[in-house]
Amino acid sequence: MVSWIVSAGFCRVSSVLRRFSSVLGPRRVVSAGAARFCSGCQERLCGPPLAGDVDRFGGVTVRDFPPDISEDEFTELLRVSLRRWRSDGRVAVWLCVPIALSRLSAAAARLGFGFHHARRDEAVLSLWLGPGEDRLPAFATHQIGVAGAVVDESNGKVLVVQDRNKTKNAWKFPGGLSDLGENIGETAVREVFEETGVRSQFCSLLSIRQQHNHPGAFGMSDMYLICRLSPLSFHIDFCTQECLRCEWLDLTELARTGETTPITSRVAKLLLYGLEHGFQSIDLTMEQMPAVYSGLFYQLYHRRLPETP
Amino acid sequence: MVSWIVSAGFCRVSSVLRRFSSVLGPRRVVSAGAARFCSGCQERLCGPPLAGDVDRFGGVTVRDFPPDISEDEFTELLRVSLRRWRSDGRVAVWLCVPIALSRLSAAAARLGFGFHHARRDEAVLSLWLGPGEDRLPAFATHQIGVAGAVVDESNGKVLVVQDRNKTKNAWKFPGGLSDLGENIGETAVREVFEETGVRSQFCSLLSIRQQHNHPGAFGMSDMYLICRLSPLSFHIDFCTQECLRCEWLDLTELARTGETTPITSRVAKLLLYGLEHGFQSIDLTMEQMPAVYSGLFYQLYHRRLPETP
Repeated sequence: MVSWIVSAGFCRVSSVLRRFSSVLGPRRVVSAGAARFCSGCQERLCGPPLAGDVDRFGGVTVRDFPPDISEDEFTELLRVSLRRWRSDGRVAVWLCVPIALSRLSAAAARLGFGFHHARRDEAVLSLWLGPGEDRLPAFATHQIGVAGAVVDESNGKVLVVQDRNKTKNAWKFPGGLSDLGENIGETAVREVFEETGVRSQFCSLLSIRQQHNHPGAFGMSDMYLICRLSPLSFHIDFCTQECLRCEWLDLTELARTGETTPITSRVAKLLLYGLEHGFQSIDLTMEQMPAVYSGLFYQLYHRRLPETP
Repeated sequence: MVSWIVSAGFCRVSSVLRRFSSVLGPRRVVSAGAARFCSGCQERLCGPPLAGDVDRFGGVTVRDFPPDISEDEFTELLRVSLRRWRSDGRVAVWLCVPIALSRLSAAAARLGFGFHHARRDEAVLSLWLGPGEDRLPAFATHQIGVAGAVVDESNGKVLVVQDRNKTKNAWKFPGGLSDLGENIGETAVREVFEETGVRSQFCSLLSIRQQHNHPGAFGMSDMYLICRLSPLSFHIDFCTQECLRCEWLDLTELARTGETTPITSRVAKLLLYGLEHGFQSIDLTMEQMPAVYSGLFYQLYHRRLPETP
């Protein structure tokens, strides 16, 4: 029975469906025709007013919306659709809402939806319909920052900078945030070049730091990785917008000075040990491995063992 | 001169400001009063119609909006505010829009704003006003997955599972996504317990994998870390929703079998080497370090050196 949607003497959903029949398309109108909704008892034979794709986990994703629908009208369409999705045993609903139709997000929020994430021109909202607590996978939680320690093995010097925008001027390795889709080593090489003008190549991963509530991470967490790089050029032409100073500094001096950060000091000591005993004592080396499902390759970083080719 | 906002014989901004004077508050009405806008030449003495906080980078963040404003009215308010922010040399504008006012996001999109990110009840939109290309920091780009290799040193066995939902059944280490704010080791211990019923404690980090366009990551990237754990209990009571099988398997068998993933096989070989030569040969150990700016502590993972206490 759907008599609860009949209000003030007319069926609101059927009038909405009639108004948007050209947009919703014949399949949807046929499967959710006004007459069937008004007759009520045939509800199980109808599809939901909003069409969506069902995924292998039992979730529904809706991507198409009538462009001229009002907030109130959309709430009604969604309410009836939710009723049907629940009775069909769907565990979740995803709405991919173009930014120009953002009023539909407000309408969905009235029925319990919240933002899952948003990127540039689209917001994705979700609602868990299954039993128990929400088991939907969360969106990305970490930004990835990568620094490059460029070591000149010929003289034991390393390339360091002081940030222009920090209150405490401390020597650190040049670095910055990974762009989406960029590999760790690519970020290190790019950031070193952008900040210092020095060209370099990736050698190994040295250390990993995780930090929560990282300043400037919009409430999310930060994973900071320091790579060892070898120089391909030596002339410094540093970015004056980002850096106050930039130098090739003795590793012994960097490991000793108080004018640095604790993590830089620790990595300087690691690098000094590597210079003396061989970098294999401190490196995590990179290995290309095949991904099981995609068939692509990914990069795995770990200790290289004597018997590993 | 602001004559461009006068249309069809009346000042649209001033009528909007009058309508929302009680919401915008006396300070804002005084600083952006209708008379000043209509007289035009005094524009520089007025503040923008929308009030915001200016950050140290020169960006403006707006958090308060008139709740009853229409899309069209908000576009007008925002247009005049943007004109003022540009003339004041602001480099960016951030709008923190509650989900119930999502129509304002559509209004902002007409003026070039896009979603920066969204979480549950709020979307954050941004617009770069500075010179050159957009230099605003991106939102989180990675999800963090952590697996735990629980090694029973007394018999050389390791705890492995087979996923229920994969097409290819392969032995792997139990694991899953890090919750926001959770440390790597905490995720590994929690996921091992949830999937297998075995209690364990964190020992070290073994390997790191980065993968882009990761399936199920909503177009973002994935950082997958494998930790070494030691068992605190041995009885298996595995989650039948997630796992098809769960066993304590000989490390030699896991390193040899084809019924596993390449990364699991690689880490099994690392662990075998560690069992024979000491885990210090494969471990990245964790060190607590003070954060420079927050005064909190974070965890740094790297090779432990002989002289490191």
